[in-house]
Amino acid sequence: MYDLVVMGAGPAGLTSAIYAVRSGLTAVVLESTIAGGQAATAPFIENYPGFESIKGIELMEKMKKHCMNYCEILENKDVLNAKKSNEGFLIETADERYESRALIIATGAKHKKLNVKGEEEFIGKGVSYCATCDGFFFKNRKVLVIGGGNTAAADALYLNSIGAKVRVIHRSAELRADKVLQQRLASAGINVLYGKRVEEIKGKERVEKVLLSDGTELECDGVFVSAGIDPNNEMAHMLGVKLDDLGYVITDGEQRTNMPFVYAAGDITRGMKQVVVACAQGAIAANSAYVDLKNPYWAEKDTKK
Amino acid sequence: MYDLVVMGAGPAGLTSAIYAVRSGLTAVVLESTIAGGQAATAPFIENYPGFESIKGIELMEKMKKHCMNYCEILENKDVLNAKKSNEGFLIETADERYESRALIIATGAKHKKLNVKGEEEFIGKGVSYCATCDGFFFKNRKVLVIGGGNTAAADALYLNSIGAKVRVIHRSAELRADKVLQQRLASAGINVLYGKRVEEIKGKERVEKVLLSDGTELECDGVFVSAGIDPNNEMAHMLGVKLDDLGYVITDGEQRTNMPFVYAAGDITRGMKQVVVACAQGAIAANSAYVDLKNPYWAEKDTKK
Repeated sequence: MYDLVVMGAGPAGLTSAIYAVRSGLTAVVLESTIAGGQAATAPFIENYPGFESIKGIELMEKMKKHCMNYCEILENKDVLNAKKSNEGFLIETADERYESRALIIATGAKHKKLNVKGEEEFIGKGVSYCATCDGFFFKNRKVLVIGGGNTAAADALYLNSIGAKVRVIHRSAELRADKVLQQRLASAGINVLYGKRVEEIKGKERVEKVLLSDGTELECDGVFVSAGIDPNNEMAHMLGVKLDDLGYVITDGEQRTNMPFVYAAGDITRGMKQVVVACAQGAIAANSAYVDLKNPYWAEKDTKK
Repeated sequence: MYDLVVMGAGPAGLTSAIYAVRSGLTAVVLESTIAGGQAATAPFIENYPGFESIKGIELMEKMKKHCMNYCEILENKDVLNAKKSNEGFLIETADERYESRALIIATGAKHKKLNVKGEEEFIGKGVSYCATCDGFFFKNRKVLVIGGGNTAAADALYLNSIGAKVRVIHRSAELRADKVLQQRLASAGINVLYGKRVEEIKGKERVEKVLLSDGTELECDGVFVSAGIDPNNEMAHMLGVKLDDLGYVITDGEQRTNMPFVYAAGDITRGMKQVVVACAQGAIAANSAYVDLKNPYWAEKDTKK
């Protein structure tokens, strides 16, 4: 019986475990694949304060090692069932059962991919899923934003603001983005190509061009895939935690969900998808777990809100 | 004319400048003393993810250098006046005027001190102002918590939860802490010494004992000063930004204050006083400034809330 089981070993989960154990709670981190989360797939991270430039995998190795000073991280633990039990929560994997008094859901999210030739190959070499993370590398360079929703429009405006030369490619005849954003695209002079799909991303060392569904090729230095984000909310679903319309777990300002003693942090919640933000949310979630577990009066008061 | 002036070069201010410039805004950081904030005074930081253990000054040197890749940090700039101007904001120091379209207040806070002999000398050698930061070092060791308010009670419970042997010393005959917290102290078996002041902190290499006002000496390994925190809100006052009852700047979840184009991040706001939380708030504040400056429609909508 642990005080706390942390689901997910990305920046949010690892940080929450560090904070939980430092506050005197017993904790374990369960990870369905390997520790690191999406951050570990980033070729370079240049906006995590303290590291001017570091490979995602390297930063996440550091965080993992940091966390292992405090508690175990169990990898490749695919959760088959997660539910409320009499005394807390019961988590079942193929070969083990874990019980805890509190849970932090830090299962993250994944960017939707185009699933075209060249996409995987050029990740970090021109292909990116995060304008805020990687936009800065593309000042004065030609980039294509793929998508037609609010994220695609916001990414295009963001990249334009940095000074990139931006075009949007969208497979339908109309954007799904809010009218206001469409107007902003127009007034920023950002060109939108409608009714075209990307069929292939081409280049030698780095991205050089894309092949479109009409057979034409477009030269570019970068391809931002803004096809959307899927929160990994299977665990949250199993537990019955409240989600918003996009599938993110809803929390209050202290990372509490609607279920007592269940917290969420990082990309599984709405908000900025940034490593430092996920870490902070993990710290706050752990602190809330500590407060609720050690001071039942407060917890009770909070769930009555 | 800058897009953004950031007031304060602690973790929140430095991170907000990194994010702001990366998003295409022009920015400058003004600091009244030297960069680093309170974090720079921490002898060791062991809960900033990615660094298992680092001197506060060393971590803040890294963040300062990181920030200087993006914009200027001007130190020893004591702000004499800060006000709304026609086109934005006007900041006056003794020798310069700075104009900007938006402002981030990241001026931090300071822990109240006891102002007794030995206090300064043993900071980081047994004297601490932050149980969450340093408590973990004191497992199984004797610590004194000095104070009688909610923070002192919460710190005492936190240290007890870690496994430290805790006593509270309070100068009055009664605690100011909430009754519930007082009951929790009692049921945790934490002893409170009433009507006593700490006159001196003594030791050789590290804290060994304190001298009390009644002439007795108490042996201890650590002294946690929980005498309160003063937010550095002079700038916020000058601008007329709304503060809460403790003097912290009130923000929404995206770090916006009640004044359009003014944001706050870090210890000047309420909430967990942790480096990683301040950094995240800085990132979010910068993103809100970007959104409001580059998309006037949204800003307008937001201020109408």
